[in-house]
Amino acid sequence: MKNKVLEGIKDKATGVYKKILKKKTPELDMPLRSLSNVKYDEKEGYFELLGKKKERTLTVGTIKTFAQTLRMMSLSKDLIQQDDIASKREAYYISKNWKEAMFNAQPDSDSVMDDVEAMMMVNREQLGFIPEEKGGEIAGQLIVIDQDTETKKELRIDCTKFGSGAYSIPTSVEHLKFETNAKFILAIETAGMFQRLVKHKYWKKANCILISMGGVPTRACRRFIRRLADTKKLPVYVFTDGDPYGYGSIYRTLKVGSGNAAHINKYFCVPQARFLGVTPQDIVDYKLPTHPLKEVDLKKIKDLLKNDPFILHHKEWQKALKQMYEMKARAEQQALAKWGLNYVLEKYLPNKIKHPEKFLP
Amino acid sequence: MKNKVLEGIKDKATGVYKKILKKKTPELDMPLRSLSNVKYDEKEGYFELLGKKKERTLTVGTIKTFAQTLRMMSLSKDLIQQDDIASKREAYYISKNWKEAMFNAQPDSDSVMDDVEAMMMVNREQLGFIPEEKGGEIAGQLIVIDQDTETKKELRIDCTKFGSGAYSIPTSVEHLKFETNAKFILAIETAGMFQRLVKHKYWKKANCILISMGGVPTRACRRFIRRLADTKKLPVYVFTDGDPYGYGSIYRTLKVGSGNAAHINKYFCVPQARFLGVTPQDIVDYKLPTHPLKEVDLKKIKDLLKNDPFILHHKEWQKALKQMYEMKARAEQQALAKWGLNYVLEKYLPNKIKHPEKFLP
Repeated sequence: MKNKVLEGIKDKATGVYKKILKKKTPELDMPLRSLSNVKYDEKEGYFELLGKKKERTLTVGTIKTFAQTLRMMSLSKDLIQQDDIASKREAYYISKNWKEAMFNAQPDSDSVMDDVEAMMMVNREQLGFIPEEKGGEIAGQLIVIDQDTETKKELRIDCTKFGSGAYSIPTSVEHLKFETNAKFILAIETAGMFQRLVKHKYWKKANCILISMGGVPTRACRRFIRRLADTKKLPVYVFTDGDPYGYGSIYRTLKVGSGNAAHINKYFCVPQARFLGVTPQDIVDYKLPTHPLKEVDLKKIKDLLKNDPFILHHKEWQKALKQMYEMKARAEQQALAKWGLNYVLEKYLPNKIKHPEKFLP
Repeated sequence: MKNKVLEGIKDKATGVYKKILKKKTPELDMPLRSLSNVKYDEKEGYFELLGKKKERTLTVGTIKTFAQTLRMMSLSKDLIQQDDIASKREAYYISKNWKEAMFNAQPDSDSVMDDVEAMMMVNREQLGFIPEEKGGEIAGQLIVIDQDTETKKELRIDCTKFGSGAYSIPTSVEHLKFETNAKFILAIETAGMFQRLVKHKYWKKANCILISMGGVPTRACRRFIRRLADTKKLPVYVFTDGDPYGYGSIYRTLKVGSGNAAHINKYFCVPQARFLGVTPQDIVDYKLPTHPLKEVDLKKIKDLLKNDPFILHHKEWQKALKQMYEMKARAEQQALAKWGLNYVLEKYLPNKIKHPEKFLP
């Protein structure tokens, strides 16, 4: 994989170099990154790029960005060869030594990094660039196989052995391998709910892997779930609050990705994800205490119903969102505590997991 | 410890019960939780409560809150006895079965929980209540000793064995024990910098424990550092961005706590913390790339200089903040990457750590 990326970078650079030798104008092309260049295909499972491209030809006007793009490619090459990493912030500061090709603000360097990512058709972690934020904790029936960065010795990390703590997902997960006999992955919105399930070792009773997303999952968390689910052929069940944010932001982003990052959804989406709860129907069935929807929630539901290709594709989601709109109420996953603190793991989850076919798509 | 809390709850409740039997008006008293009831004592090391108390006497007007306070104490008693936990959110939902003593909104139940916490003079984790949010990752020369929640068997979690990943701190850390030969704890603001130090096993070279705070540290993260530093007599060095937020919010909160939670600062402050960098003088000495201070940053500096008892106590901090105010510039910890990606661990940190006496207090 690493070698393929290295070769890709060298190919692109050689192309530019040869054009220059022939006294022709060099150019770099990359897919256009915008919602207008995206479609949703259920079989593929994510927002997919259409064919539109943008071309960066060397002219007086583009010379700085052109040079910056080449330097960014070169930085990536160095990172891969030296087995090092750079965060987006660090890449920006490194450019301070690129003389005239220096970036003046981080959004500019981020954007060129996105271009290189799209150009090489890989995710930026494969280019040696890591995200700034951490996020995602694991507990349960899983052994993560990493290696000691110094000795390259294999490290086996047993996620059943963390007590009340958990394994924290690194910012780049491309190199990890997995061993597991678990039956499914349960991805959980809140840290509080995760801690309850860990405290009572729900992962043992249900033979599963618990993942705390802590709100909208980070890139590393999404990629981790995707790679784990793919390589081990595991279903992914998602357990969020019953509200438009849980459905339209957390779940939808995990499952199919987002519009403005279409060139990487392929790597970060989790098409096998299915929505376990809390559904609007759960609010009725389990007589959950609710909070009234605010104006902004109602607007979000309308937006999703009108503009989101994923929702437009799935009648079940349209029905659920309309039901919530009419109820004008939302419920948090902790609302199940009304029936006792451990109702969630003694009744709600076991009942639900008997019928994955009833989960929202 | 657990038994002491249980006895405290029983004592208070028995007091109320006896008064009622004697047909007298029962009352509950607790420390007043506000900045007006706080002082900063460097020797103690945290914002400390003065003696002011508030009393909750049973009257027609207070009957609901009085009942809720007793029910909350009773919930805490159950949690401790059953070795269970409840998040603030869950405690709120449980109250939905308290009939007339039900809370109508979570801020009300949070506030009563704070009252009980202050009344018992413990932190709420000791009452069985856990915070909603997770946060804080560890890598390096540390073995955390937890226990299997089911079998009660000891679990030894070796934080040198996680490769590129890390140990994620649980939401409650009261029960953890530690083994270490490390020389210091390095608490780091950003996940990106933490990941760099982990990638290059800085903890091995420097014989230390790395902790990623991810911005302002959570309660669990602060308490973890405090307990670890206390029991193992370790110095704590703090490495944040060079900006008013890093100084006044992240570092100050870690070291002495915050004003509106004065009754618990005793448990959550880390008086042994010292500020390693990035200082305003570092920006000069290391010729770091900067960003201009915004209006809100300048205002924050003025506020700190005028109103913060911690800053008012320390001339060195006043000097540093004034220096930054005059430079009108801030620098991120990644700015050191200007001198090479690993300059931070090959030069900056080793140079600094030779002279802890020069750290800001």
